[in-house]
Amino acid sequence: MIKVGIVGGTGYTGVELLRLLARHSGVKLQAVTSRKEAGMKVAEMYPSLRGWVDLAFSTPEEACLTECDVVFFATPNGIAMQQARELLNAGVKVIDLAADYRIKDLAEWSKWYGMQHASPELVEEAVYGLPEINRAAIKGARLIANPGCYPTAVQLGFLPLIEAGVIDTSSLIADCKSGVSGAGRKAELGALFSEAADNFKAYGVAGHRHLPEIRQGLARASGAPVGLTFVPHLTPLIRGIHATLYAKITKDVDLQALFEQRYQGEQFVDVLPAGSHPETRSVRGANICRIAVHRPQGGDTVVILSAIDNLVKGAAGQAVQNMNILFDLPEGTGLDVVPLLP
Amino acid sequence: MIKVGIVGGTGYTGVELLRLLARHSGVKLQAVTSRKEAGMKVAEMYPSLRGWVDLAFSTPEEACLTECDVVFFATPNGIAMQQARELLNAGVKVIDLAADYRIKDLAEWSKWYGMQHASPELVEEAVYGLPEINRAAIKGARLIANPGCYPTAVQLGFLPLIEAGVIDTSSLIADCKSGVSGAGRKAELGALFSEAADNFKAYGVAGHRHLPEIRQGLARASGAPVGLTFVPHLTPLIRGIHATLYAKITKDVDLQALFEQRYQGEQFVDVLPAGSHPETRSVRGANICRIAVHRPQGGDTVVILSAIDNLVKGAAGQAVQNMNILFDLPEGTGLDVVPLLP
Amino acid sequence: MIKVGIVGGTGYTGVELLRLLARHSGVKLQAVTSRKEAGMKVAEMYPSLRGWVDLAFSTPEEACLTECDVVFFATPNGIAMQQARELLNAGVKVIDLAADYRIKDLAEWSKWYGMQHASPELVEEAVYGLPEINRAAIKGARLIANPGCYPTAVQLGFLPLIEAGVIDTSSLIADCKSGVSGAGRKAELGALFSEAADNFKAYGVAGHRHLPEIRQGLARASGAPVGLTFVPHLTPLIRGIHATLYAKITKDVDLQALFEQRYQGEQFVDVLPAGSHPETRSVRGANICRIAVHRPQGGDTVVILSAIDNLVKGAAGQAVQNMNILFDLPEGTGLDVVPLLP
Amino acid sequence: MIKVGIVGGTGYTGVELLRLLARHSGVKLQAVTSRKEAGMKVAEMYPSLRGWVDLAFSTPEEACLTECDVVFFATPNGIAMQQARELLNAGVKVIDLAADYRIKDLAEWSKWYGMQHASPELVEEAVYGLPEINRAAIKGARLIANPGCYPTAVQLGFLPLIEAGVIDTSSLIADCKSGVSGAGRKAELGALFSEAADNFKAYGVAGHRHLPEIRQGLARASGAPVGLTFVPHLTPLIRGIHATLYAKITKDVDLQALFEQRYQGEQFVDVLPAGSHPETRSVRGANICRIAVHRPQGGDTVVILSAIDNLVKGAAGQAVQNMNILFDLPEGTGLDVVPLLP
Repeated sequence: MIKVGIVGGTGYTGVELLRLLARHSGVKLQAVTSRKEAGMKVAEMYPSLRGWVDLAFSTPEEACLTECDVVFFATPNGIAMQQARELLNAGVKVIDLAADYRIKDLAEWSKWYGMQHASPELVEEAVYGLPEINRAAIKGARLIANPGCYPTAVQLGFLPLIEAGVIDTSSLIADCKSGVSGAGRKAELGALFSEAADNFKAYGVAGHRHLPEIRQGLARASGAPVGLTFVPHLTPLIRGIHATLYAKITKDVDLQALFEQRYQGEQFVDVLPAGSHPETRSVRGANICRIAVHRPQGGDTVVILSAIDNLVKGAAGQAVQNMNILFDLPEGTGLDVVPLLP
Repeated sequence: MIKVGIVGGTGYTGVELLRLLARHSGVKLQAVTSRKEAGMKVAEMYPSLRGWVDLAFSTPEEACLTECDVVFFATPNGIAMQQARELLNAGVKVIDLAADYRIKDLAEWSKWYGMQHASPELVEEAVYGLPEINRAAIKGARLIANPGCYPTAVQLGFLPLIEAGVIDTSSLIADCKSGVSGAGRKAELGALFSEAADNFKAYGVAGHRHLPEIRQGLARASGAPVGLTFVPHLTPLIRGIHATLYAKITKDVDLQALFEQRYQGEQFVDVLPAGSHPETRSVRGANICRIAVHRPQGGDTVVILSAIDNLVKGAAGQAVQNMNILFDLPEGTGLDVVPLLP
Repeated sequence: MIKVGIVGGTGYTGVELLRLLARHSGVKLQAVTSRKEAGMKVAEMYPSLRGWVDLAFSTPEEACLTECDVVFFATPNGIAMQQARELLNAGVKVIDLAADYRIKDLAEWSKWYGMQHASPELVEEAVYGLPEINRAAIKGARLIANPGCYPTAVQLGFLPLIEAGVIDTSSLIADCKSGVSGAGRKAELGALFSEAADNFKAYGVAGHRHLPEIRQGLARASGAPVGLTFVPHLTPLIRGIHATLYAKITKDVDLQALFEQRYQGEQFVDVLPAGSHPETRSVRGANICRIAVHRPQGGDTVVILSAIDNLVKGAAGQAVQNMNILFDLPEGTGLDVVPLLP
Repeated sequence: MIKVGIVGGTGYTGVELLRLLARHSGVKLQAVTSRKEAGMKVAEMYPSLRGWVDLAFSTPEEACLTECDVVFFATPNGIAMQQARELLNAGVKVIDLAADYRIKDLAEWSKWYGMQHASPELVEEAVYGLPEINRAAIKGARLIANPGCYPTAVQLGFLPLIEAGVIDTSSLIADCKSGVSGAGRKAELGALFSEAADNFKAYGVAGHRHLPEIRQGLARASGAPVGLTFVPHLTPLIRGIHATLYAKITKDVDLQALFEQRYQGEQFVDVLPAGSHPETRSVRGANICRIAVHRPQGGDTVVILSAIDNLVKGAAGQAVQNMNILFDLPEGTGLDVVPLLP
């Protein structure tokens, strides 16, 4: 059994890790830390876990994380960069669900995250944990930078087109819509029910932290920088991201076939039949990205629709998928959850 | 493997059965019937089942239901009463998720459901499928009347008090709130998003079909008729029933202990610690009833809070639980779903 | 024109006052205070008011509230009790939307609100601003204690029955459901979209601050203490309170006629036809309480359904209604808003 | 007083017309027709109108529409084209809220709406009722084609850019999100609460009926055909449309100033300060389009955010605005509604 620790288990990615790991046949949950809630039973804070998780939150000191095989950081940005080194030195694998190790360009990272990096030497080593492009590297990694939610949905949608060289990468558009859980379990006014319910808005049009992450991933696939306009929106869902992607077609190929071939054999990317419209609820609670390809009126614009659950394929589910790869388990272990519909 | 058929798989209880049975290790799904959608892949109508259910809907004729071991009726009221006889004669077990076999008093049934019963001789034989009171009878049954959603939440809440004889059963109050999926997947104005969202209302105060079912169950437990005021409300949830139950205490006992003892060993009833308030989301997607007991200001009124997912413990999950009992499987087989929170 | 000041205009009752006063033909809005947001345009925080409110928030010092004719306190509990005295001395009328002056029994108040009262001598003078029982007293008052939202819905529902002496007042039940805006515009975890959406729960069953207020009002009507079980619930609405009230009938009268007569001539209480179920959306945005009377199956339990918008008839609308009475304006001035449906 | 008739008052645009006209100082509501509900009080179907609308639905025959000054068609597509002629002949002005007279190209109209036009000779005469581009023509019209909801939001967003000739009109993108009330008050599965709540999806990517309407309007402004990709999405709001518009900038101008100048003096278009993100709730219930202009990272892509209430500026409110223009009333008469926030 893999001994697992979770740092920061009180947020939404933390509880989602717990939901998935509670039924994972290959792990033993050793510790869930929360300095603030230390001593409280996890299931007292999250009654949904009654009968599934018997652990109490512990302080990082009590948690003996160095004795784990793998530690997940479900923490705010800036924590893992301070604590990963010690764990790695002790031979523990680290999967960071925050953004600390996602951006290779340190100056760019500092600009968007407003901090100096505390362990710059690990940034280069860290493997970007999007299995559909990085599976081999993940297998041998010590430190995984688990992708952001928007970046997962957008990259999986654009990659087949970019890799095949069939679109103009100088003016990509990603119009993305996120449920409110993407903002985390933080007491902020904008995330209140009375602010976010029955309401729709764009935000961060001038610049969002996921922009450099997406650009980096698409540039890597393209072999050259890309031009990307990324507009995130807040929509009154709890869970779900829907990315609507636009690009100009430069080469006339069978787009449906292109996507089906690219993701053949991928367990967690589902290319829908031509003409489909993926709904966020069709992925609710499950580690899957559903994608549909459109070319409206046969014009030269391709429209990709890409839907994930931001807390699963966009966070905790992808982290478990990465763990399974790291430890040579079948990639779907613990991820056999049927989406909850309705 | 138990060979399973589902009659009427296009509604919400049908798709919920499919969600649960798709991961059930002891069954083989033989057929899902829908006269209207025959030929269409189930996963085309419900993309959440892509990769989980490969079957297409079939006509009842194609389905060869008599070759199944068990058939679930996830149909409107009045269907199972016409078709159960033939299946029972062929040695098939039948679990009806509709109301055809719930009420023992035929006249009462006809009054509330507005039909003549088509197989009155089976009504007496049918076993009311609330395992927490009827487990032994279920084990030997051929025909199970799966309880209604409100009746499940209300009975599980009142039963310990009535069985212990500690409340006045002449003036019970059940103030119940249901999510909209309880109305089924039917194109009705009142269930439109624009009618039901951001709105709350009572309905059927003059009389609701679940009233006689609840009264029958409570009377059985009490050994005498009970007086019950039942007021259902529609609340803007997809899933969930919350019953708030009021009764006058006639005997001073430790209510918390009473509930804990009554449900000790029950896998699917969870008595919360004193002072708790069960949330519907804490049971979302799972086959569990969470209950809290209150005695406000130490007065003589007991307040019971009881929460279930109407589609799971209130319908399809309870039906699977009944099937497990019928076929001597561990009662929780296929029901190891962690509630989805948030 | 009545010169109006608002203390604490950044919360939901504050912005609701602004929405209503912006179209009120008899007032001039002098100042809206917020120490924290002083200098910021009100319409910058609330773009819905662009074109309607040109004022900026001011500090209390800048606001010169003593030059107003009336000042509304849309503040947390415990503010008005410190500031009302000075305004009253200056001849300014005060309407407190918080709870400072609602409870006559000072010890009871301290117990529930956890503070010593700062101006106990004003508590007795303050008039409880429920116009339907207190119109005459309001007319001559200096200081109005605007009722709470639950207390408004519950009292208007029970009063006709209690005044007529036709129910047993020893075991009243008020099962109440509130939208999330009732929690105010405060960054609290429980009011987050991801916590409150698609979820239903009871809270404060052991005791809620509105209990003593309701009991006081009903006792006044009854002439004797009443026994009341009050259970509030949180339901995923932005606005709206639905009270479902239960009482035992002790005298056989025409209940529908009783309610219609009691509220004849009341502009802001609407007794629906027999058999109706008021929806919260039918009062959304409007200063009205809609009530329906039921006697299920002709039994001895009366069920009253009472619906208000918690921010209007349950707060700001009622405050404007009180202001109109205070200044001898037609009671509906500025309150001619058609509910927003759908 | 203008004598007003409404054909088809049971849908959402019908009840919204009633909400607005109930408070309009210049009209007398003569008749609201509904063959199906004839005889029923309007306020019985819509209790929100109790006290505001005393009329009952009447049959078209009883309604004597030819005696009205103006008749609104709040009907499905294909009704007004059959009935407008008779009314025009009788000297009645007609405002069609459906699509019958919006598209000048009859073949195009037939292709998208699947019908032969019943009064093609009126199509040319009809004036497209978007006051911000057509005010003069509206003033003298007999027959108004009230714009669609998406077309209103998209055209108001693109027009200043197209009129000024500062963008490449060959590859415009309109990524639009609509609340569910846009689907009307029809019992359709896809509009059920349990289907649409907590869910987000695109639809009609291959082609939506509003596409030719938008293209026609933009081409008129441009003086040449435009290339437009239009992707509508369904988002779990009751009311609201948010259009996110993308275009390539071809000429370097002060975009903020361009928009402010274009809409200076327009009462119902509000250009927000630079850097803003209009929320749909900031226009909830009100006849206003709020627009923000962005140029992310100073690149060559302009992003316009445009928000309306689909039932008001996207339907009934704009129809009342058109009526006011037709009858030389101040354009805002009856439209002085403050948006409902929260």
